[in-house]
Amino acid sequence: MQYSLLNTNNNMAGNSFGQLFRITTFGESHGEAIGVIIDGCPAQLPIDMEYIQGELDKRKPGQSKITTQRKESDTVKILSGVFEGKTTGTPIAMLIPNEDQRSKDYSHNTDVFRPSHADYTYQAKYGIRDYRGGGRSSARETAARVAAGAIAKLLLKTQRIEILAHVSSVGKIDAPNVEITTAEEFLAVRESNIVRCADPATAEEMIEFIDSVRKDGDTVGGKVSCHIQNCPVGLGEPVFDKLHAELGKAMLSINAVHGFEFGSGFAGSEMRGSEHNDIFVKSHLGDIKTITNFSGGIQGGISNGMPIEFKVAFKPVATIMHNQQTVDAGGNAAEISGKGRHDPCVVPRAVPIVEAMAALVLADHWLRNRNAYIELEA
Amino acid sequence: MQYSLLNTNNNMAGNSFGQLFRITTFGESHGEAIGVIIDGCPAQLPIDMEYIQGELDKRKPGQSKITTQRKESDTVKILSGVFEGKTTGTPIAMLIPNEDQRSKDYSHNTDVFRPSHADYTYQAKYGIRDYRGGGRSSARETAARVAAGAIAKLLLKTQRIEILAHVSSVGKIDAPNVEITTAEEFLAVRESNIVRCADPATAEEMIEFIDSVRKDGDTVGGKVSCHIQNCPVGLGEPVFDKLHAELGKAMLSINAVHGFEFGSGFAGSEMRGSEHNDIFVKSHLGDIKTITNFSGGIQGGISNGMPIEFKVAFKPVATIMHNQQTVDAGGNAAEISGKGRHDPCVVPRAVPIVEAMAALVLADHWLRNRNAYIELEA
Amino acid sequence: MQYSLLNTNNNMAGNSFGQLFRITTFGESHGEAIGVIIDGCPAQLPIDMEYIQGELDKRKPGQSKITTQRKESDTVKILSGVFEGKTTGTPIAMLIPNEDQRSKDYSHNTDVFRPSHADYTYQAKYGIRDYRGGGRSSARETAARVAAGAIAKLLLKTQRIEILAHVSSVGKIDAPNVEITTAEEFLAVRESNIVRCADPATAEEMIEFIDSVRKDGDTVGGKVSCHIQNCPVGLGEPVFDKLHAELGKAMLSINAVHGFEFGSGFAGSEMRGSEHNDIFVKSHLGDIKTITNFSGGIQGGISNGMPIEFKVAFKPVATIMHNQQTVDAGGNAAEISGKGRHDPCVVPRAVPIVEAMAALVLADHWLRNRNAYIELEA
Amino acid sequence: MQYSLLNTNNNMAGNSFGQLFRITTFGESHGEAIGVIIDGCPAQLPIDMEYIQGELDKRKPGQSKITTQRKESDTVKILSGVFEGKTTGTPIAMLIPNEDQRSKDYSHNTDVFRPSHADYTYQAKYGIRDYRGGGRSSARETAARVAAGAIAKLLLKTQRIEILAHVSSVGKIDAPNVEITTAEEFLAVRESNIVRCADPATAEEMIEFIDSVRKDGDTVGGKVSCHIQNCPVGLGEPVFDKLHAELGKAMLSINAVHGFEFGSGFAGSEMRGSEHNDIFVKSHLGDIKTITNFSGGIQGGISNGMPIEFKVAFKPVATIMHNQQTVDAGGNAAEISGKGRHDPCVVPRAVPIVEAMAALVLADHWLRNRNAYIELEA
Repeated sequence: MQYSLLNTNNNMAGNSFGQLFRITTFGESHGEAIGVIIDGCPAQLPIDMEYIQGELDKRKPGQSKITTQRKESDTVKILSGVFEGKTTGTPIAMLIPNEDQRSKDYSHNTDVFRPSHADYTYQAKYGIRDYRGGGRSSARETAARVAAGAIAKLLLKTQRIEILAHVSSVGKIDAPNVEITTAEEFLAVRESNIVRCADPATAEEMIEFIDSVRKDGDTVGGKVSCHIQNCPVGLGEPVFDKLHAELGKAMLSINAVHGFEFGSGFAGSEMRGSEHNDIFVKSHLGDIKTITNFSGGIQGGISNGMPIEFKVAFKPVATIMHNQQTVDAGGNAAEISGKGRHDPCVVPRAVPIVEAMAALVLADHWLRNRNAYIELEA
Repeated sequence: MQYSLLNTNNNMAGNSFGQLFRITTFGESHGEAIGVIIDGCPAQLPIDMEYIQGELDKRKPGQSKITTQRKESDTVKILSGVFEGKTTGTPIAMLIPNEDQRSKDYSHNTDVFRPSHADYTYQAKYGIRDYRGGGRSSARETAARVAAGAIAKLLLKTQRIEILAHVSSVGKIDAPNVEITTAEEFLAVRESNIVRCADPATAEEMIEFIDSVRKDGDTVGGKVSCHIQNCPVGLGEPVFDKLHAELGKAMLSINAVHGFEFGSGFAGSEMRGSEHNDIFVKSHLGDIKTITNFSGGIQGGISNGMPIEFKVAFKPVATIMHNQQTVDAGGNAAEISGKGRHDPCVVPRAVPIVEAMAALVLADHWLRNRNAYIELEA
Repeated sequence: MQYSLLNTNNNMAGNSFGQLFRITTFGESHGEAIGVIIDGCPAQLPIDMEYIQGELDKRKPGQSKITTQRKESDTVKILSGVFEGKTTGTPIAMLIPNEDQRSKDYSHNTDVFRPSHADYTYQAKYGIRDYRGGGRSSARETAARVAAGAIAKLLLKTQRIEILAHVSSVGKIDAPNVEITTAEEFLAVRESNIVRCADPATAEEMIEFIDSVRKDGDTVGGKVSCHIQNCPVGLGEPVFDKLHAELGKAMLSINAVHGFEFGSGFAGSEMRGSEHNDIFVKSHLGDIKTITNFSGGIQGGISNGMPIEFKVAFKPVATIMHNQQTVDAGGNAAEISGKGRHDPCVVPRAVPIVEAMAALVLADHWLRNRNAYIELEA
Repeated sequence: MQYSLLNTNNNMAGNSFGQLFRITTFGESHGEAIGVIIDGCPAQLPIDMEYIQGELDKRKPGQSKITTQRKESDTVKILSGVFEGKTTGTPIAMLIPNEDQRSKDYSHNTDVFRPSHADYTYQAKYGIRDYRGGGRSSARETAARVAAGAIAKLLLKTQRIEILAHVSSVGKIDAPNVEITTAEEFLAVRESNIVRCADPATAEEMIEFIDSVRKDGDTVGGKVSCHIQNCPVGLGEPVFDKLHAELGKAMLSINAVHGFEFGSGFAGSEMRGSEHNDIFVKSHLGDIKTITNFSGGIQGGISNGMPIEFKVAFKPVATIMHNQQTVDAGGNAAEISGKGRHDPCVVPRAVPIVEAMAALVLADHWLRNRNAYIELEA
């Protein structure tokens, strides 16, 4: 067949993340499967399949009354890169089949753009879109990130690095700061309620609120806070790949995220330097610490050994059960009613995604720079 | 000389930014020069040296009473990649000599770590640091970013894309939202005061406040807001290089930045979906617009043609004129007094840096994906 | 479990190829499946599954008496990135299950290193290896490359770019230069014999020779020549990503390749400039051509519109049916006898791999630089 | 000024090389300066400026009667990244001013394309070219590579890794294989003659021949052979970044290179496996070696500890002093006579460039993978 070229793509698609611990994901909401290849995981890392599946279970739909009712087992399978229970240093491919696509729920969408979704921008950008369930723009692809992030977490755990996130806000309901002792304790409290808040009292309030929003056929936003323990000094690559900049990009790449802050965050912009500085002291163990931690564990873009603290803001999910006005591809007015199965509030399911993305950044930077110098003796 | 290896570096240093419009910067605060190579700028772009120097002049130290008093002309020179006034498609090297280094101001720093600076983390990471003026961690390297960003802006201007930032907050003083008509008008108002706020009344208040903080020997933080006009639909590369994620990483890589939000930002996390959705309509010009813009011009990580809106939070600069307690490299208690010449508030000088980083992201994504598809006719 | 770190990996694994048309492969010889993700293929490209499977059939084992007798159908499946027969611009995942692994054939290999294989180097590098069939070092992973290369070829065919390789040498038997008219004719002649030589007389000689080598339980090397038709002017990115440099790296990454040359090649190094220069003339069609083509279609690293010509040298495969002396992991002497099922000469099956790798390079560079300039009118 | 866009660039320019030890070069033949930024060199490496300048002196023009007579001192200056004689881990910028440009020598070239040069392809690709001296396509940019390669060599020398190249062929004159004992001895012999051949007898023959070619106003090609001592086991990243594939790309990126082979090379393609295999034995030092080295020190793309051996073929330089027929930009017939100052044979000056590129590859891979695994104890 003869072709002449009208337009062309010079697209460098952004489906990979990381430099040394590098993942590439694929898969659409209503396609056959989603998955990921990890390239650069060190060899000889023991792989705990139960752990990986457990992380996916925290993200999967249909897990409680306050999440979407789509049912997926999100069962992951490893196709390569692991031999006799350990990584071989070759690429690790992980596959998660899609099971419960209800494509006909979206047959009414082929021509109209749902407000605040990516329908319009994907159609404009590619000239073609898989309209079923949002295609690649659906949050379903985050399952692949959680699978890869679980392996990153296993790597970090060998260094005692723990990534601990929880839901700190739902709508205007804010949890108080939570004192974190050990990872196990923190996770036990957090997993004891379906909203994944580490303060049980606030959790109750949040669950009630989300349930009422759901009954309204509406949605609401929230915030996830993350605390990283035992990050060694030195991670982060100035000037552009500063650790907090990479964490920010990682979090902002998650669906529905509209804001990122670390340490003193936006509040810090209202402070004075004399109030804000973290004074260095020598700890009783002999290492260097700071009395306060406005820096959120990162100075000059490099980790300083104090806990890393950041917060991620999620907007309310766009699909609501009310009718809304919109346009179709021709720009003509149309009406759309939200069908499909949606979360009234995404943040309970976002917690493992935030942890996974943080793990991918930390694993990458840990590999990128354990030591940034060569030490020679004559 | 014989060497045996004690430790080694497997460092992938992060001094490059961008994929197709790619910059690599070099240079330290008290070294001979700073500079940048741009690789990937299209050929045949006319280069306006006055414009580039003008952007650098907005960033340079010693520009007003409310900035650091270090005097640099920040005169930029192009060494390659431009022939007869146009780019050749080969790498463009730009050089900015350092002139007013007062290295002895820092001779007291060789052994102690200034609180909330990068002294400690750089020393721990590399085992060696250029202590003069913060070395590579100093904000001086941002001059190279502004130089490169100016060329990115020239490229974007050929497409009528305008990047317009201003100081929207200093400490707790917030400017009201500013109605933006044309780029020229906006810039005229903004440049009419030394704090670069586009609301003249608030600007007065801000200048007075910063001056009093300076007299206290203290510093204060602030926020810069940015509005991008005429961004075409389709920029951004899901799933990891979403446009707002790349903007976030770009902004967070600037010294002293602790937070980034776009569109409805952190406030949006408190809203309901029914309040938050941007309804599509057809504009009188025939193109598709939204009535509101909580999405900040970006949906699913791809620009939708509405103005892009984001905000960057800066912490107060860490060097203050008070004595502070700290430790030295051995962990022993020491005292430090801030010398050197410092900004009481960085945000007036940060405005051109924010614009430069936004330009680098937009130029990169504009090149990365003008059209994401091939259109064939049989 | 508590871990302390003895050694660490700072590995940037090289399992990806390409910048804009970027592939990442995974899979081992005796694992469950091999596969590839393509990121950056333009949207709206029609996908011809028969064509893709046809390319894989040319590479697969068990295809004739002069290749390995391992039987694989190499049936490929696409899991994402294609909707209603066209690419969507999202990542394309392709999966090829392994069927005929005879892992017990390799149970004698767990402790010894086969000469001239990668057993020793993989064991030394990773500290662990999947000894079955060579694991990731096996040529089986090239099936994934051929699958991805088939899609690259479909893209190039929309521009009439044709990649035409054939076996030009087996051992000391060299085919004469072949006059190439159309792609269809060339492929018809080449596929008419099992050694894939485009000169039928030489093909007979080659087949007879390989068969005798096989009966000896030995192997022999050969060369594959490649001719690319209709490559547009301008492909290639000086100074490091010159087109011939990228082709060279692509070919050298194929198992058993020991040499690459283009244009006048090694023979050109013996010539004088006065004999070697390609004189420009204007063709009857009005475009610029050269009378001779010692440049092999590439000047200064950029394609000039003349056919691209290069040659790839393959060493004899290392597994032979004779006993050989070797060592085991402890360095102790051991004997090894070649089992498994192997090719007496790899070049017939290498032809589609050479074409696939060339297609990946050309597709990448075609996307990287259709036009290297912006053309503006006031 | 108003612009509308006719064409655009989606160019990913290839002016960077390496992943972890990463260089970006800039500069044209007749521009102000050429230079390079190295990003990723470990901190604390002592920098020997005399050594670096010495390497540049081996490449510079005007060094003998058998090279071009253009006079440049190629004096290099380091602008950043080195403090008190050691690298800081921040980017190292190196600058080499151009001194002896004779731009008027090229004023006759503005409209015509010199045969076998890159004039035509650059003009077609970018729509603009700096015609003076070949602009960016000139071999002058290789000075920047040698400067950066010198620092890579200093890094490798700390590990006793030595890179030793010499001219093994000029035209049809081939040197016999040279037995290499120590690096110092090899270099002493090689530098004792102006053609840089490590066999003094052949060197005499070569010099006489080149001189006669020069008097003819003609040019001739040649080959450079390279031997790398003490490369540790494990360097190289399958499957695409195999060590020999990266070396091949590096060498092919050098001006005038038309072929690359390693180990048994093209000759190996004529051999049988039974003749070709390298048998493993345990050396008297206890490490694993092979009796022969057809593998050229690399198996499965990974170094095995044996010397790495490869060969690079250079075509004759294209500028000759005879008149030649050509065309101009409009495709009209024109005549051109070679002016400017050119090498009759490039290989003596290519030796340090080959060594520099090999050093960049080895340094990058040494950083990329010292150990490819993590070794944990419970």
